[in-house]
Amino acid sequence: MTIKDISGQIFKKKSFLCIGLDVDLDKIPKHLLKEDDPIFAFNKAIIDATHDLCVAYKPNTAFYEAHGVKGWMALEKTIKYLNEKYPNHFTIADAKRGDIGNTSERYAKAFFDTLGFDSVTVAPYMGADSVEPFLTFEGKYAILLALTSNQGAFDFQTKSVDDEALFLKIIETSKLWLNSDRLMYVVGATKSDQIGQIRRLLPDSFLLVPGIGAQGGQLEAVCREAMTPNVGLIVNSSRDILYASHDEDFSDAARHQAQKIQVQMAQFLVGLAGQ
Amino acid sequence: MTIKDISGQIFKKKSFLCIGLDVDLDKIPKHLLKEDDPIFAFNKAIIDATHDLCVAYKPNTAFYEAHGVKGWMALEKTIKYLNEKYPNHFTIADAKRGDIGNTSERYAKAFFDTLGFDSVTVAPYMGADSVEPFLTFEGKYAILLALTSNQGAFDFQTKSVDDEALFLKIIETSKLWLNSDRLMYVVGATKSDQIGQIRRLLPDSFLLVPGIGAQGGQLEAVCREAMTPNVGLIVNSSRDILYASHDEDFSDAARHQAQKIQVQMAQFLVGLAGQ
Repeated sequence: MTIKDISGQIFKKKSFLCIGLDVDLDKIPKHLLKEDDPIFAFNKAIIDATHDLCVAYKPNTAFYEAHGVKGWMALEKTIKYLNEKYPNHFTIADAKRGDIGNTSERYAKAFFDTLGFDSVTVAPYMGADSVEPFLTFEGKYAILLALTSNQGAFDFQTKSVDDEALFLKIIETSKLWLNSDRLMYVVGATKSDQIGQIRRLLPDSFLLVPGIGAQGGQLEAVCREAMTPNVGLIVNSSRDILYASHDEDFSDAARHQAQKIQVQMAQFLVGLAGQ
Repeated sequence: MTIKDISGQIFKKKSFLCIGLDVDLDKIPKHLLKEDDPIFAFNKAIIDATHDLCVAYKPNTAFYEAHGVKGWMALEKTIKYLNEKYPNHFTIADAKRGDIGNTSERYAKAFFDTLGFDSVTVAPYMGADSVEPFLTFEGKYAILLALTSNQGAFDFQTKSVDDEALFLKIIETSKLWLNSDRLMYVVGATKSDQIGQIRRLLPDSFLLVPGIGAQGGQLEAVCREAMTPNVGLIVNSSRDILYASHDEDFSDAARHQAQKIQVQMAQFLVGLAGQ
């Protein structure tokens, strides 16, 4: 998938929404627990109900790994279903991987080749050779953690290194890595005052913004600070959509919630060249 | 498992060796590829041949995930085999996970409850709430990336924050986290001049040292700089042991290589109180 494809889908659907498929068996409707694979059954229903309102889906691997082999099977089925039925959606493995070079190569193989995701989130702490193996795949993207939306982001990410915040240092350094045009960046929406700084460093990159909804971010501020002529934003919502209802009407409720966000997003896209 | 149990095993076996189970199907003996589960068959043979020479085993999850569900099944079988047959070995999931709090909880559940590992390696970039969920399990440990053995370690880890290197800042901060007595630390053996600094900050903690062997570290320097009366070191070797031979004699060759390291280790333990 190319950046142009992603922007094209955004303008077509008037949406830059990503839906996070963080499936919690304690929160999904009880009747699904009788299914052979409740996680996949839930994902399939959510995807079928929301696909025209969003441009991306993002399963977080932790929610699958917690169930061992069964969870990994549900993850495989979910990405296969997406790739077969909705191949125009951008798929993100929210895995936050990163290791020494020969090991990162394996992670890249796992998520791009074996599973077939378009992108994977990657942690920066181990530096260039821990990320570059993810950037060797044509049409695939590594989404580097820059500034996250949790309280712990203030522990290290915002600390000053060479007179700038660590997250800015990481972004600047990453621009020099091999195939850095295949990098996108995770930027928490709860830090909207810093998104503008990041956008000035990265005028052309896509930013993945978690934290709309349950994490308390604000869509308007994000768009004001960081939207580009090419949009340049994929904004995620997970729990507010997935668990809009805990009953049999869960997929309708999810669609309704996704539509509320999509309608807001459409307003922010008015006037961009691609419209 | 307690720290005392680990030290006890080290003194009993005169070894603080950890064997990294990073299985590469391109490197294992060809005859194993006919097995139903070549990865598990290889691990089982390596474990049976080396268990009395080491105190820990460390599968790196990337090498399993690269094979999808089959890889995850091999990982489950490997840890189950270890827990049933060799319950006195300390097991490390080298997974380098870390995410926001509710997600790290899932990873902790995946590795401690579902799989049954004693410990998991964790990345520090997202701060306190990304690590603390791993520290809520009695008898389980999170092994925090401090200073890694790869070239990329110099990109960010050694940069100066508040007049000290980022990896030292992370260590100091982590000592204040809830249940920080359940933290161990990854410290690359290729950075032996910095291991002493780390030891002074962490007089009582166990350090997991990768980088002996294929990554070029030096056992003697590590012991001189960082051994404590309680040993406080688990030193890993992967490729040099696993791939000592690519033929049918691979497990004998692995044992021979592990023994070479164990004999060296025994010398460094002479004179410690536990002996």
